[in-house]
Amino acid sequence: MRAEVLCIGTELLIGQVVNTNATYLAKELAAIGVDLLWVTTVGDNPARMDAAIATALDRADLVLVTGGLGPTADDLTVEAVARVLGEPMAERPEVRAHIEGWFRERNRPLAPSNYKQTLFPTSAELIPNPTGTAYGLRVRKGHSQLMAFPGVPMELRAMWTSWARPQIERESGSTLRSVLLRYVGIGEALLAERVAHLLEGSNPTVAPYAGDWEVHLRVSAKAATAAEADALMAPVLAELRAIQPYYYGSDDVTLAAAVGQLLRARGETVATAESCTSGLLASRFTDVPKSSDYMRGGVVAYATDVKQDLLGLSEDVLAHGVVSEPVASALAQAARRVLKSDWGVGITGWAGSAPTPEDSGLVWIAVAGPAGAAAVAELQRFGGAIPRETVKYRATQTALALLRRQLMT
Amino acid sequence: MRAEVLCIGTELLIGQVVNTNATYLAKELAAIGVDLLWVTTVGDNPARMDAAIATALDRADLVLVTGGLGPTADDLTVEAVARVLGEPMAERPEVRAHIEGWFRERNRPLAPSNYKQTLFPTSAELIPNPTGTAYGLRVRKGHSQLMAFPGVPMELRAMWTSWARPQIERESGSTLRSVLLRYVGIGEALLAERVAHLLEGSNPTVAPYAGDWEVHLRVSAKAATAAEADALMAPVLAELRAIQPYYYGSDDVTLAAAVGQLLRARGETVATAESCTSGLLASRFTDVPKSSDYMRGGVVAYATDVKQDLLGLSEDVLAHGVVSEPVASALAQAARRVLKSDWGVGITGWAGSAPTPEDSGLVWIAVAGPAGAAAVAELQRFGGAIPRETVKYRATQTALALLRRQLMT
Repeated sequence: MRAEVLCIGTELLIGQVVNTNATYLAKELAAIGVDLLWVTTVGDNPARMDAAIATALDRADLVLVTGGLGPTADDLTVEAVARVLGEPMAERPEVRAHIEGWFRERNRPLAPSNYKQTLFPTSAELIPNPTGTAYGLRVRKGHSQLMAFPGVPMELRAMWTSWARPQIERESGSTLRSVLLRYVGIGEALLAERVAHLLEGSNPTVAPYAGDWEVHLRVSAKAATAAEADALMAPVLAELRAIQPYYYGSDDVTLAAAVGQLLRARGETVATAESCTSGLLASRFTDVPKSSDYMRGGVVAYATDVKQDLLGLSEDVLAHGVVSEPVASALAQAARRVLKSDWGVGITGWAGSAPTPEDSGLVWIAVAGPAGAAAVAELQRFGGAIPRETVKYRATQTALALLRRQLMT
Repeated sequence: MRAEVLCIGTELLIGQVVNTNATYLAKELAAIGVDLLWVTTVGDNPARMDAAIATALDRADLVLVTGGLGPTADDLTVEAVARVLGEPMAERPEVRAHIEGWFRERNRPLAPSNYKQTLFPTSAELIPNPTGTAYGLRVRKGHSQLMAFPGVPMELRAMWTSWARPQIERESGSTLRSVLLRYVGIGEALLAERVAHLLEGSNPTVAPYAGDWEVHLRVSAKAATAAEADALMAPVLAELRAIQPYYYGSDDVTLAAAVGQLLRARGETVATAESCTSGLLASRFTDVPKSSDYMRGGVVAYATDVKQDLLGLSEDVLAHGVVSEPVASALAQAARRVLKSDWGVGITGWAGSAPTPEDSGLVWIAVAGPAGAAAVAELQRFGGAIPRETVKYRATQTALALLRRQLMT
């Protein structure tokens, strides 16, 4: 099946909005095994919309249109589809009832222009919109079918997931299932070598992707039913999840959430003492719901005397240089002691330019644990060419990975 | 001038890569007053590439192609352009010398496939690549011209800025200049009302955009020279920059950098005591180079007893509830005292779900200053429906705006 995504909206042509809908649908189509061959964007212009719709219906078997379903004068998609099909528009009573009910429930006044959203080409099948007023539509022409969705990403996604994707899968008689596996602390090339024997498989397929200071493997399988596809994937997933200490979670699990889960299971707590990352690690911990179960807090010791006064680092330790293994270890120990936690993480480094160029982007990360033993420390040289925010993020990623390894031993 | 952007690369059609090049070029074209009417994406497929190039040359006056200029087998753009023009390819000695020199300088071996990058259609003008090996090209056909760039965003941007954009501006005989003005603490609708008399102007134009918990006004003017365009903008910019205490900076200035600049000018320092934002505010301060001049550090007091032990908050204050104005003010005062800074910022709130639904997303923010007077506090109700990370970011945005207002009095 050859697909085209057609995005409609002048806001996309002036760079005001990033076209996340196109990327979303591209990923989704890949996930169900449909070949996307064209992505086209045109503005809210009837002639160019008509031409783009006609071209897409001609060359593709599946056309997904986004945008232009709203109530205002520049929402022209439904009319364009009707024109290209040569069909009149007619009011759909069920849509009228839905829209009137939607406004009534919210005690909001209904504008005359809202009734525009009740008109559809006569042959169109309606796509329900669980989160808004604009219905989508499906029409067929020759070998091709076209589905139109609102441009609001939340509405598009809800309608795609609940209606369109299942329809396409049902009609194609096969289901593609896929899982994203997340790894940290190992490079893409090294991980790919280690799983080379799986990368050549055709069902399931395994494909590596570089994430932000982590690596992902996408495992996908196609079968008549979801259960059969899952069964095909099961042994491969088991093998790939056993790659430790690197594999940390699947799909939407973040590294901070995976570490939090380990802390919760152990009934232990964590605290941070950060210099160059300056609170970013503490903040990542609390992006996870219920992180107050194990996150105590932290100290951001940006100035050197804060490291002494608030965290009790001695002159002797600081004499090694503020960016050094002893200082990182002392910060980790101090976080434990001062914030009364089981685990402490210390980070010190040069997020931007350092006194000497070769030290720019150099970061020491240390973890101290409940055993009271010496802290475990790791050095990262991110280099001076990458932005401060990126050095900071990658340092927190390394810190979470280091803590995770200690929690697993 | 009618423009089309044509992006080439199968990675864009499987959702692996977000098409930031299209958004970048769309913004740039808007900024120089060129109408972008189509954005098209096709994969690394000769037949579809040829068709897309031919269509674009036919309907647009300016075609900007990205991707497919590399040395590997799936880099097919230059050949496709030659085919559509009906021209043979020939080696360019200057490109051969550039590529050989590039590899020699880096002590890296040159693969035979790299010589592919020395071949161009005979009529092509070369576009130099200051940051990589792949030259771009410009060709003309009838009313239209086509420029091809590498897909690597850094290389595309360098070649666009240094070569292509100035060429287009020179040929069109007019220059468009624009400035982005940034406002915080005022809503888009309110700001737009206040500047309504400027929104109808045609040269310069003023257009409002919603940012992330801030508002932007883009001011643009067109003239024969940059100096003339700047002169047209000057009185409007002066008027818009006088809208205080909301306007904080232009173009790439961040709110944290603007606040930092005020602190540096006063020779004063800042520290933070954060509960729900958990270090994000401290981290935003140090995203700014040289922030160690005024940023002392902070305490992340996620657990309640950390607020007592490390920051000295009394039982009396905490009795108002951990999310309350007295606690925010006490945190701000404690940040000043414990971290020995001139200014202290305190934040406490419910980033996610609160004990009662109506309190979800409720945040108190306070600033304490060197005068020793009572802290100034502000309440924000972000609501329970938005993600934790968004509540946290918006709370830090409010905190920076509140601190800025105090620094300006």
